[in-house]
Amino acid sequence: MSVPPKDLEHLKQRMLAMAGAVEEQVRTAVEALVERNHDMAQAVLTGDKPIDQLHLEIDERCFQLLEAQQLPSTELRVVVTGVKINSDLERIGDLAINIGETTLRYLEHPSVKPLIDIPRMGSIAQGMLRDSLDSYVKQDMTLAQQVLNRDDQLDELKEQVFHELVGVMCSDTTITEQALDLILISRHLERVGDHATNIAEEAIFMVSGLDVRHQGQEGQANR
Amino acid sequence: MSVPPKDLEHLKQRMLAMAGAVEEQVRTAVEALVERNHDMAQAVLTGDKPIDQLHLEIDERCFQLLEAQQLPSTELRVVVTGVKINSDLERIGDLAINIGETTLRYLEHPSVKPLIDIPRMGSIAQGMLRDSLDSYVKQDMTLAQQVLNRDDQLDELKEQVFHELVGVMCSDTTITEQALDLILISRHLERVGDHATNIAEEAIFMVSGLDVRHQGQEGQANR
Repeated sequence: MSVPPKDLEHLKQRMLAMAGAVEEQVRTAVEALVERNHDMAQAVLTGDKPIDQLHLEIDERCFQLLEAQQLPSTELRVVVTGVKINSDLERIGDLAINIGETTLRYLEHPSVKPLIDIPRMGSIAQGMLRDSLDSYVKQDMTLAQQVLNRDDQLDELKEQVFHELVGVMCSDTTITEQALDLILISRHLERVGDHATNIAEEAIFMVSGLDVRHQGQEGQANR
Repeated sequence: MSVPPKDLEHLKQRMLAMAGAVEEQVRTAVEALVERNHDMAQAVLTGDKPIDQLHLEIDERCFQLLEAQQLPSTELRVVVTGVKINSDLERIGDLAINIGETTLRYLEHPSVKPLIDIPRMGSIAQGMLRDSLDSYVKQDMTLAQQVLNRDDQLDELKEQVFHELVGVMCSDTTITEQALDLILISRHLERVGDHATNIAEEAIFMVSGLDVRHQGQEGQANR
Protein backbone atom coordinates (compact mmCIF):
# COMPACT_ATOMS: atom_id res chain seq x y z
CA MET A 1 0.00 0.00 0.00
CA SER A 2 1.32 3.41 -0.90
CA VAL A 3 1.27 6.59 1.17
CA PRO A 4 -0.95 9.29 -0.35
CA PRO A 5 1.54 11.51 -2.22
CA LYS A 6 0.38 14.57 -0.26
CA ASP A 7 1.60 12.96 2.99
CA LEU A 8 5.18 12.62 1.75
CA GLU A 9 4.93 16.06 0.17
CA HIS A 10 3.81 17.50 3.49
CA LEU A 11 6.75 15.80 5.27
CA LYS A 12 9.17 17.33 2.80
CA GLN A 13 7.59 20.77 3.22
CA ARG A 14 8.01 20.58 6.99
CA MET A 15 11.62 19.51 6.56
CA LEU A 16 12.21 22.48 4.26
CA ALA A 17 10.68 24.74 6.93
CA MET A 18 13.03 23.18 9.51
CA ALA A 19 16.04 23.64 7.24
CA GLY A 20 15.04 27.26 6.58
CA ALA A 21 14.81 28.00 10.31
CA VAL A 22 18.16 26.32 10.97
CA GLU A 23 19.85 28.16 8.11
CA GLU A 24 18.50 31.46 9.42
CA GLN A 25 20.00 30.74 12.86
CA VAL A 26 23.43 30.00 11.32
CA ARG A 27 23.18 33.14 9.18
CA THR A 28 22.27 35.33 12.17
CA ALA A 29 25.07 33.85 14.29
CA VAL A 30 27.71 34.57 11.65
CA GLU A 31 26.30 38.05 11.01
CA ALA A 32 26.39 38.81 14.75
CA LEU A 33 30.09 37.97 14.71
CA VAL A 34 30.87 40.00 11.60
CA GLU A 35 28.82 43.02 12.70
CA ARG A 36 29.92 42.69 16.34
CA ASN A 37 26.22 42.78 17.23
CA HIS A 38 25.58 41.61 20.77
CA ASP A 39 21.78 41.64 20.49
CA MET A 40 21.85 39.54 17.37
CA ALA A 41 24.08 36.92 19.07
CA GLN A 42 21.72 36.94 22.02
CA ALA A 43 18.74 36.42 19.69
CA VAL A 44 20.34 33.23 18.36
CA LEU A 45 20.45 31.77 21.87
CA THR A 46 16.69 32.09 22.27
CA GLY A 47 15.86 31.48 18.61
CA ASP A 48 15.86 27.70 18.51
CA LYS A 49 12.45 27.01 20.06
CA PRO A 50 10.71 26.73 16.65
CA ILE A 51 13.49 24.36 15.56
CA ASP A 52 13.01 22.13 18.58
CA GLN A 53 9.27 22.11 17.87
CA LEU A 54 9.80 21.16 14.24
CA HIS A 55 12.29 18.49 15.26
CA LEU A 56 9.66 16.80 17.44
CA GLU A 57 6.89 17.31 14.90
CA ILE A 58 8.88 15.78 12.01
CA ASP A 59 10.04 12.84 14.12
CA GLU A 60 6.47 12.16 15.18
CA ARG A 61 5.22 12.56 11.60
CA CYS A 62 7.76 10.03 10.31
CA PHE A 63 6.79 7.62 13.04
CA GLN A 64 3.10 8.00 12.23
CA LEU A 65 3.76 7.32 8.55
CA LEU A 66 5.59 4.11 9.48
CA GLU A 67 2.91 3.14 11.96
CA ALA A 68 -0.08 3.75 9.71
CA GLN A 69 0.71 1.17 7.09
CA GLN A 70 3.36 -1.02 5.48
CA LEU A 71 5.19 1.31 3.09
CA PRO A 72 6.72 0.26 -0.23
CA SER A 73 10.53 0.37 -0.12
CA THR A 74 10.90 3.62 -2.04
CA GLU A 75 8.65 5.52 0.38
CA LEU A 76 10.09 3.72 3.38
CA ARG A 77 13.47 5.02 2.32
CA VAL A 78 12.20 8.62 2.10
CA VAL A 79 10.76 8.39 5.62
CA VAL A 80 13.75 6.64 7.26
CA THR A 81 16.10 9.13 5.58
CA GLY A 82 13.80 11.87 6.88
CA VAL A 83 14.35 10.66 10.46
CA LYS A 84 18.13 10.81 10.00
CA ILE A 85 18.17 14.19 8.27
CA ASN A 86 15.90 15.60 10.97
CA SER A 87 18.60 14.73 13.55
CA ASP A 88 21.29 16.41 11.47
CA LEU A 89 19.21 19.58 11.15
CA GLU A 90 18.62 19.73 14.88
CA ARG A 91 22.35 19.39 15.55
CA ILE A 92 23.08 22.23 13.13
CA GLY A 93 20.61 24.31 15.14
CA ASP A 94 22.66 23.47 18.26
CA LEU A 95 25.84 24.50 16.46
CA ALA A 96 24.30 27.89 15.62
CA ILE A 97 23.74 28.34 19.34
CA ASN A 98 27.35 27.35 20.05
CA ILE A 99 28.47 30.00 17.54
CA GLY A 100 26.17 32.57 19.18
CA GLU A 101 27.55 31.76 22.66
CA THR A 102 31.16 31.89 21.53
CA THR A 103 30.45 35.16 19.70
CA LEU A 104 29.06 36.71 22.89
CA ARG A 105 32.26 35.84 24.72
CA TYR A 106 34.37 37.03 21.76
CA LEU A 107 32.59 40.40 21.82
CA GLU A 108 33.67 40.99 25.42
CA HIS A 109 37.15 41.80 24.09
CA PRO A 110 38.25 44.42 21.59
CA SER A 111 38.59 43.22 18.03
CA VAL A 112 42.25 42.83 17.15
CA LYS A 113 42.31 41.08 13.88
CA PRO A 114 40.13 40.82 10.80
CA LEU A 115 38.03 37.65 10.79
CA ILE A 116 40.22 36.05 8.13
CA ASP A 117 38.22 33.38 6.28
CA ILE A 118 35.51 32.83 8.87
CA PRO A 119 32.75 34.77 7.04
CA ARG A 120 33.63 32.78 3.92
CA MET A 121 33.38 29.53 5.89
CA GLY A 122 29.97 30.74 7.07
CA SER A 123 28.65 31.29 3.59
CA ILE A 124 30.01 27.97 2.30
CA ALA A 125 28.42 26.12 5.22
CA GLN A 126 25.08 27.85 4.66
CA GLY A 127 25.14 27.03 0.95
CA MET A 128 25.95 23.38 1.71
CA LEU A 129 23.05 23.20 4.14
CA ARG A 130 20.58 24.68 1.66
CA ASP A 131 21.73 22.49 -1.23
CA SER A 132 21.86 19.30 0.83
CA LEU A 133 18.22 19.68 1.79
CA ASP A 134 17.25 20.54 -1.77
CA SER A 135 19.05 17.42 -2.98
CA TYR A 136 16.90 15.32 -0.61
CA VAL A 137 13.63 17.02 -1.47
CA LYS A 138 14.25 17.01 -5.23
CA GLN A 139 16.19 13.74 -5.22
CA ASP A 140 18.90 15.62 -7.12
CA MET A 141 22.09 13.54 -7.08
CA THR A 142 24.19 16.11 -8.92
CA LEU A 143 23.43 18.71 -6.29
CA ALA A 144 24.16 16.20 -3.50
CA GLN A 145 27.54 15.41 -5.06
CA GLN A 146 28.35 19.13 -5.25
CA VAL A 147 27.73 19.40 -1.50
CA LEU A 148 30.20 16.58 -0.85
CA ASN A 149 32.86 18.32 -2.96
CA ARG A 150 32.52 21.57 -1.05
CA ASP A 151 33.24 19.87 2.28
CA ASP A 152 36.95 19.57 1.42
CA GLN A 153 37.05 23.30 0.76
CA LEU A 154 35.59 23.95 4.21
CA ASP A 155 38.08 21.61 5.86
CA GLU A 156 40.98 23.38 4.16
CA LEU A 157 39.73 26.78 5.30
CA LYS A 158 39.39 25.45 8.85
CA GLU A 159 43.03 24.27 8.80
CA GLN A 160 44.16 27.60 7.35
CA VAL A 161 42.25 29.61 9.97
CA PHE A 162 43.68 27.36 12.68
CA HIS A 163 47.30 27.84 11.63
CA GLU A 164 46.93 31.59 11.18
CA LEU A 165 45.34 32.03 14.58
CA VAL A 166 47.82 29.75 16.36
CA GLY A 167 50.54 31.98 14.88
CA VAL A 168 48.76 35.04 16.26
CA MET A 169 48.37 33.43 19.69
CA CYS A 170 52.01 32.41 19.89
CA SER A 171 53.20 35.90 19.13
CA ASP A 172 50.88 37.96 21.33
CA THR A 173 49.32 36.74 24.58
CA THR A 174 47.04 39.78 24.84
CA ILE A 175 44.74 38.36 22.18
CA THR A 176 44.87 34.68 23.13
CA GLU A 177 41.24 34.54 24.17
CA GLN A 178 39.85 36.22 21.07
CA ALA A 179 41.95 34.06 18.76
CA LEU A 180 40.85 30.94 20.61
CA ASP A 181 37.19 31.90 20.24
CA LEU A 182 37.63 32.37 16.51
CA ILE A 183 39.24 28.92 16.27
CA LEU A 184 36.25 27.43 18.08
CA ILE A 185 33.79 29.26 15.81
CA SER A 186 35.58 28.01 12.69
CA ARG A 187 35.25 24.47 14.08
CA HIS A 188 31.55 24.92 14.70
CA LEU A 189 31.15 26.04 11.08
CA GLU A 190 33.14 23.07 9.84
CA ARG A 191 30.74 20.83 11.76
CA VAL A 192 27.76 22.55 10.11
CA GLY A 193 29.38 21.47 6.85
CA ASP A 194 29.86 17.93 8.19
CA HIS A 195 26.16 17.64 8.96
CA ALA A 196 25.26 19.04 5.52
CA THR A 197 27.57 16.36 4.09
CA ASN A 198 25.71 13.72 6.10
CA ILE A 199 22.42 15.00 4.68
CA ALA A 200 23.75 14.87 1.11
CA GLU A 201 25.11 11.34 1.67
CA GLU A 202 21.76 10.27 3.07
CA ALA A 203 20.01 11.76 0.02
CA ILE A 204 22.37 9.87 -2.29
CA PHE A 205 21.77 6.62 -0.44
CA MET A 206 18.04 7.19 -0.54
CA VAL A 207 18.11 7.41 -4.33
CA SER A 208 20.86 4.87 -5.00
CA GLY A 209 19.00 2.52 -2.68
CA LEU A 210 16.09 2.82 -5.09
CA ASP A 211 18.40 2.18 -8.03
CA VAL A 212 19.64 -1.02 -6.43
CA ARG A 213 16.18 -2.44 -6.95
CA HIS A 214 16.51 -1.83 -10.67
CA GLN A 215 20.17 -2.70 -11.14
CA GLY A 216 20.76 -5.70 -8.92
CA GLN A 217 23.65 -5.78 -6.45
CA GLU A 218 25.92 -3.20 -8.01
CA GLY A 219 24.35 -0.15 -6.42
CA GLN A 220 25.47 -1.35 -2.99
CA ALA A 221 28.89 0.15 -3.63
CA ASN A 222 27.29 3.56 -3.54
CA ARG A 223 26.79 3.29 0.15
CA MET B 1 2.30 -9.03 12.76
CA SER B 2 5.20 -9.20 15.16
CA VAL B 3 8.90 -9.58 14.41
CA PRO B 4 10.29 -12.91 15.64
CA PRO B 5 11.88 -11.98 19.00
CA LYS B 6 15.26 -13.33 17.87
CA ASP B 7 15.42 -10.68 15.10
CA LEU B 8 15.15 -7.79 17.55
CA GLU B 9 17.50 -9.61 19.91
CA HIS B 10 20.02 -9.96 17.10
CA LEU B 11 19.72 -6.24 16.28
CA LYS B 12 20.44 -5.36 19.89
CA GLN B 13 23.43 -7.71 19.99
CA ARG B 14 24.92 -6.06 16.91
CA MET B 15 24.36 -2.63 18.45
CA LEU B 16 26.13 -3.77 21.60
CA ALA B 17 29.03 -4.97 19.43
CA MET B 18 29.11 -1.56 17.73
CA ALA B 19 29.03 0.25 21.09
CA GLY B 20 31.83 -1.99 22.40
CA ALA B 21 34.03 -1.21 19.39
CA VAL B 22 33.34 2.52 19.70
CA GLU B 23 34.04 2.52 23.42
CA GLU B 24 37.34 0.70 22.82
CA GLN B 25 38.37 3.40 20.32
CA VAL B 26 37.61 6.18 22.82
CA ARG B 27 39.47 4.31 25.56
CA THR B 28 42.54 3.77 23.35
CA ALA B 29 42.58 7.42 22.24
CA VAL B 30 42.51 8.70 25.82
CA GLU B 31 45.11 6.15 26.91
CA ALA B 32 47.39 7.21 24.03
CA LEU B 33 47.21 10.76 25.35
CA VAL B 34 47.83 9.81 28.97
CA GLU B 35 50.67 7.39 28.16
CA ARG B 36 52.10 9.64 25.43
CA ASN B 37 51.97 6.61 23.15
CA HIS B 38 52.31 7.55 19.49
CA ASP B 39 51.61 4.04 18.15
CA MET B 40 48.43 3.77 20.13
CA ALA B 41 47.16 7.12 18.78
CA GLN B 42 48.05 5.96 15.29
CA ALA B 43 46.13 2.72 15.84
CA VAL B 44 42.97 4.70 16.61
CA LEU B 45 43.18 6.39 13.20
CA THR B 46 43.02 3.07 11.38
CA GLY B 47 40.81 1.34 13.94
CA ASP B 48 37.40 2.48 12.78
CA LYS B 49 36.89 0.14 9.82
CA PRO B 50 34.92 -2.42 11.88
CA ILE B 51 32.79 0.46 13.20
CA ASP B 52 31.99 1.70 9.69
CA GLN B 53 31.09 -1.87 8.72
CA LEU B 54 28.79 -2.28 11.71
CA HIS B 55 27.23 1.12 11.02
CA LEU B 56 26.22 0.01 7.52
CA GLU B 57 25.17 -3.45 8.68
CA ILE B 58 22.90 -2.14 11.46
CA ASP B 59 21.35 0.49 9.20
CA GLU B 60 20.62 -2.15 6.59
CA ARG B 61 19.27 -4.53 9.22
CA CYS B 62 16.86 -1.90 10.56
CA PHE B 63 15.71 -1.12 7.04
CA GLN B 64 15.11 -4.80 6.30
CA LEU B 65 13.07 -5.19 9.47
CA LEU B 66 10.88 -2.24 8.41
CA GLU B 67 10.64 -3.54 4.86
CA ALA B 68 9.77 -7.13 5.71
CA GLN B 69 6.47 -6.47 7.44
CA GLN B 70 4.26 -3.95 9.19
CA LEU B 71 5.63 -3.82 12.75
CA PRO B 72 3.54 -3.20 15.85
CA SER B 73 4.27 0.18 17.42
CA THR B 74 6.44 -1.10 20.25
CA GLU B 75 8.78 -2.92 17.88
CA LEU B 76 8.67 -0.10 15.35
CA ARG B 77 9.92 2.16 18.10
CA VAL B 78 12.84 -0.16 18.92
CA VAL B 79 13.89 -0.22 15.26
CA VAL B 80 13.50 3.53 14.57
CA THR B 81 15.38 4.29 17.79
CA GLY B 82 18.01 1.81 16.60
CA VAL B 83 18.54 3.84 13.42
CA LYS B 84 19.07 7.02 15.44
CA ILE B 85 21.37 5.44 18.03
CA ASN B 86 23.41 3.85 15.24
CA SER B 87 24.16 7.37 13.91
CA ASP B 88 25.20 8.56 17.35
CA LEU B 89 27.55 5.62 17.79
CA GLU B 90 29.19 6.24 14.43
CA ARG B 91 29.75 9.91 15.32
CA ILE B 92 31.37 8.88 18.60
CA GLY B 93 33.69 6.69 16.53
CA ASP B 94 34.59 9.79 14.48
CA LEU B 95 35.26 11.73 17.68
CA ALA B 96 37.68 9.02 18.85
CA ILE B 97 39.57 9.58 15.60
CA ASN B 98 39.56 13.35 16.21
CA ILE B 99 41.03 12.70 19.66
CA GLY B 100 43.66 10.38 18.13
CA GLU B 101 44.63 12.99 15.51
CA THR B 102 44.84 15.80 18.04
CA THR B 103 46.87 13.56 20.36
CA LEU B 104 49.37 12.86 17.58
CA ARG B 105 49.89 16.59 17.09
CA TYR B 106 50.04 17.15 20.86
CA LEU B 107 52.79 14.52 21.17
CA GLU B 108 55.01 16.46 18.76
CA HIS B 109 55.72 18.89 21.62
CA PRO B 110 57.18 18.25 25.05
CA SER B 111 54.66 17.78 27.82
CA VAL B 112 54.51 20.89 29.95
CA LYS B 113 51.57 20.42 32.19
CA PRO B 114 49.68 17.55 33.77
CA LEU B 115 46.52 16.68 31.87
CA ILE B 116 44.33 18.27 34.54
CA ASP B 117 40.85 16.72 34.40
CA ILE B 118 41.01 15.30 30.89
CA PRO B 119 41.53 11.64 31.91
CA ARG B 120 38.58 12.04 34.27
CA MET B 121 36.47 13.46 31.43
CA GLY B 122 37.50 10.42 29.38
CA SER B 123 36.32 7.94 31.97
CA ILE B 124 33.03 9.77 32.56
CA ALA B 125 32.35 9.88 28.81
CA GLN B 126 33.13 6.17 28.43
CA GLY B 127 30.85 5.29 31.34
CA MET B 128 28.04 7.39 29.85
CA LEU B 129 28.44 5.65 26.51
CA ARG B 130 28.32 2.17 28.06
CA ASP B 131 25.34 2.94 30.26
CA SER B 132 23.37 4.73 27.55
CA LEU B 133 23.54 1.66 25.31
CA ASP B 134 22.66 -0.63 28.21
CA SER B 135 19.65 1.57 28.97
CA TYR B 136 18.44 1.07 25.37
CA VAL B 137 19.06 -2.66 25.27
CA LYS B 138 17.58 -3.34 28.71
CA GLN B 139 14.96 -0.57 28.47
CA ASP B 140 16.27 0.64 31.83
CA MET B 141 14.93 4.16 32.44
CA THR B 142 16.78 4.64 35.74
CA LEU B 143 20.10 4.01 34.04
CA ALA B 144 19.15 6.34 31.17
CA GLN B 145 18.32 9.09 33.65
CA GLN B 146 21.69 8.60 35.38
CA VAL B 147 23.42 9.18 32.03
CA LEU B 148 21.57 12.49 31.59
CA ASN B 149 22.64 13.62 35.07
CA ARG B 150 26.30 12.92 34.35
CA ASP B 151 26.30 15.18 31.29
CA ASP B 152 26.26 18.29 33.49
CA GLN B 153 29.33 17.00 35.29
CA LEU B 154 31.15 16.62 31.98
CA ASP B 155 30.13 20.12 30.87
CA GLU B 156 31.45 21.59 34.11
CA LEU B 157 34.77 19.80 33.72
CA LYS B 158 35.03 21.05 30.15
CA GLU B 159 34.54 24.65 31.34
CA GLN B 160 37.07 24.15 34.12
CA VAL B 161 39.67 22.68 31.75
CA PHE B 162 39.03 25.53 29.32
CA HIS B 163 39.60 28.27 31.90
CA GLU B 164 42.70 26.63 33.34
CA LEU B 165 44.26 26.17 29.93
CA VAL B 166 43.40 29.68 28.72
CA GLY B 167 45.18 30.91 31.84
CA VAL B 168 48.22 28.83 30.92
CA MET B 169 48.16 30.09 27.33
CA CYS B 170 47.92 33.72 28.36
CA SER B 171 50.92 33.46 30.66
CA ASP B 172 53.30 31.44 28.50
CA THR B 173 53.33 31.49 24.69
CA THR B 174 55.80 28.60 24.49
CA ILE B 175 53.05 26.12 25.30
CA THR B 176 50.19 27.70 23.37
CA GLU B 177 49.92 24.84 20.90
CA GLN B 178 49.89 22.07 23.49
CA ALA B 179 47.31 23.87 25.63
CA LEU B 180 45.12 24.46 22.58
CA ASP B 181 45.25 20.77 21.66
CA LEU B 182 44.17 19.82 25.17
CA ILE B 183 41.24 22.24 24.93
CA LEU B 184 40.20 20.63 21.64
CA ILE B 185 40.48 17.11 23.13
CA SER B 186 38.33 18.11 26.11
CA ARG B 187 35.71 19.36 23.64
CA HIS B 188 35.78 16.11 21.71
CA LEU B 189 35.20 14.23 24.97
CA GLU B 190 32.34 16.53 25.88
CA ARG B 191 30.76 15.72 22.52
CA VAL B 192 31.12 11.98 23.23
CA GLY B 193 29.05 12.71 26.33
CA ASP B 194 26.53 14.68 24.23
CA HIS B 195 26.00 11.71 21.94
CA ALA B 196 25.66 9.36 24.93
CA THR B 197 23.04 11.80 26.23
CA ASN B 198 21.22 11.60 22.88
CA ILE B 199 21.25 7.81 23.12
CA ALA B 200 19.84 7.89 26.66
CA GLU B 201 17.14 10.38 25.60
CA GLU B 202 16.24 8.17 22.66
CA ALA B 203 16.01 5.16 24.99
CA ILE B 204 13.72 7.11 27.31
CA PHE B 205 11.52 8.18 24.45
CA MET B 206 11.39 4.64 23.15
CA VAL B 207 10.00 3.41 26.47
CA SER B 208 7.91 6.45 27.39
CA GLY B 209 6.50 6.32 23.87
CA LEU B 210 5.20 2.89 24.76
CA ASP B 211 3.77 4.28 27.99
CA VAL B 212 1.86 6.93 26.07
CA ARG B 213 -0.18 4.16 24.54
CA HIS B 214 -1.29 3.11 27.99
CA GLN B 215 -1.69 6.51 29.58
CA GLY B 216 -3.33 8.65 26.91
CA GLN B 217 -2.01 12.08 25.98
CA GLU B 218 -0.09 12.93 29.12
CA GLY B 219 3.03 11.02 28.28
CA GLN B 220 3.72 13.42 25.39
CA ALA B 221 5.43 15.74 27.83
CA ASN B 222 8.13 13.13 28.23
CA ARG B 223 9.46 13.88 24.82
